[in-house]
Amino acid sequence: MTTAVLSTLIRPLVEPRLPDWVEPLWFMSKDQALELAPRAEIGWFDFNEPSPMCEVVTAATNLKWLNSIYAGLDFLPLDLLEERGTIVTNGAGINAITIAEYVVMLMLTHAKGYREVVRAQDRHEWLLDSPGKRELHGERVLLFGLGAIGSLVKPRLEAFGMEVVPVRRSGGEGALGPDEWRGQIGTFDWVILALPSTPETHHMIGADELAAMKSTAVLANFARGDVVDQAALVEALEAKSIEAALLDVTEPEPLPTDHPLWSLDNAQIAMHLSGRAQTKMFQRSADRFIENLGKWHAGEPVEPQMDLALGY
Amino acid sequence: MTTAVLSTLIRPLVEPRLPDWVEPLWFMSKDQALELAPRAEIGWFDFNEPSPMCEVVTAATNLKWLNSIYAGLDFLPLDLLEERGTIVTNGAGINAITIAEYVVMLMLTHAKGYREVVRAQDRHEWLLDSPGKRELHGERVLLFGLGAIGSLVKPRLEAFGMEVVPVRRSGGEGALGPDEWRGQIGTFDWVILALPSTPETHHMIGADELAAMKSTAVLANFARGDVVDQAALVEALEAKSIEAALLDVTEPEPLPTDHPLWSLDNAQIAMHLSGRAQTKMFQRSADRFIENLGKWHAGEPVEPQMDLALGY
Repeated sequence: MTTAVLSTLIRPLVEPRLPDWVEPLWFMSKDQALELAPRAEIGWFDFNEPSPMCEVVTAATNLKWLNSIYAGLDFLPLDLLEERGTIVTNGAGINAITIAEYVVMLMLTHAKGYREVVRAQDRHEWLLDSPGKRELHGERVLLFGLGAIGSLVKPRLEAFGMEVVPVRRSGGEGALGPDEWRGQIGTFDWVILALPSTPETHHMIGADELAAMKSTAVLANFARGDVVDQAALVEALEAKSIEAALLDVTEPEPLPTDHPLWSLDNAQIAMHLSGRAQTKMFQRSADRFIENLGKWHAGEPVEPQMDLALGY
Repeated sequence: MTTAVLSTLIRPLVEPRLPDWVEPLWFMSKDQALELAPRAEIGWFDFNEPSPMCEVVTAATNLKWLNSIYAGLDFLPLDLLEERGTIVTNGAGINAITIAEYVVMLMLTHAKGYREVVRAQDRHEWLLDSPGKRELHGERVLLFGLGAIGSLVKPRLEAFGMEVVPVRRSGGEGALGPDEWRGQIGTFDWVILALPSTPETHHMIGADELAAMKSTAVLANFARGDVVDQAALVEALEAKSIEAALLDVTEPEPLPTDHPLWSLDNAQIAMHLSGRAQTKMFQRSADRFIENLGKWHAGEPVEPQMDLALGY
């Protein structure tokens, strides 16, 4: 038998499907989790806050595999986990479907000027012409990141008749490599960021990159706020040197009430809601965990594994 | 030589590509058009209003082929045109791309509750959870009409992982026939209307059909206002017996300021803007006309031909 210490929050979705080689121990509180942690070979220790998760993980001295619903786990004691040889599966991609839907939605609401239509309905005013007259059809997209989110965004946009060129670390297969995109950014109508935040991507889109973009280009950030130099972005939007920004993420979050981004006509602030706009996160996470248990038992790699050195 | 009487509005897009067997005569005003009309074998007599178009068409006694950018030409003297044997090509499908994009946009803005996000940004308020938590992915769509618009909507929604079941007069190929959909309407999450307005489709969706729909169903009308019994729809929305309506079209248009639809939280009023949300209508219409000139000269049928008896 393999001992798995699991949160009761996930119990109804997981318990009926547990294989017979798993001995589950369920916890309801941080204290219970701390008490059970040393017995765990497999652990799923999610709390709403980072600090209890760190405490429990530290106490799980026999942990071989740590699972989580969260995508961003860089707050964990990664050195300790690496030293112990613990494998970590995170929630990368659990929210990818709704995020991909959100990307397309914001592109469309910009293209058609739909926020003006919403405001007109609130005033009971029938507009005689469309505030936005752009079609996605036939436009070109530079897509940074072809992970869980990017790989769902691409076929959705292609169905609209868009040409989507990904940027990948490895290049290849119609993708641009990390050194190739700068020279071509001025040929794209949309630039979409859907990559992890790392030291390499910090302020990757700054004043120079914004200046190189078309005056009709739209920047969509679904990565992390710090991938864009936000002060440079505000300047570009104020000067209308690009057409608009679609921002699921900002720096900081929440954005302070007096931040200039709020009032810019050409910025849509989506308040990091894209991943929350679904109800299936727990179900998908449970499904993935059950599937991974089968792989674990068969000696196959569980997925998706976090790279403890890279931090994502 | 074949004489074609054409509006100067379209001249820059058409003239450079006219074949040498066409003698073009350009008009700038209704009076000029009336004067030239009797010489026209081919005519493109678009005005902003129906009445000058009817006058000029009536005066075009030798007209063999009438072209127009407009999709709805039921105001023309159709009996006269039929008697004269005039072929009519209309603008059906010229706006289909932007309309299809608008359909998907409204489905997404409903799914994610995006209007609340727009209002929150206007207040500089950072929302902590998404007002809408629905995913298009995995949901089922009943799509009325597989013409120019419907045939573009279908692949776009399928790219989101939706199951799209069309309703066609002919049935077949995974489609439901006109007598089959009523029994199944309660199994769909979205019902999209994208068919022409005819006596058959008048109030096709009424109290009974709305009552048969899921309580979470969303009705999207991109056809004509009278395809839906609007009084019954307002009742269903007030009672929340369906979840929402996405209305590009209403009865009447514009909707009066005091109409109850304006204030319903679960109605999005798109003010017949979907077709206007583009800038390529003239270009596409000119391209199609030039292509049709080639067919006309070769004795092939020009497209799309209006059925003068059906009126569309």
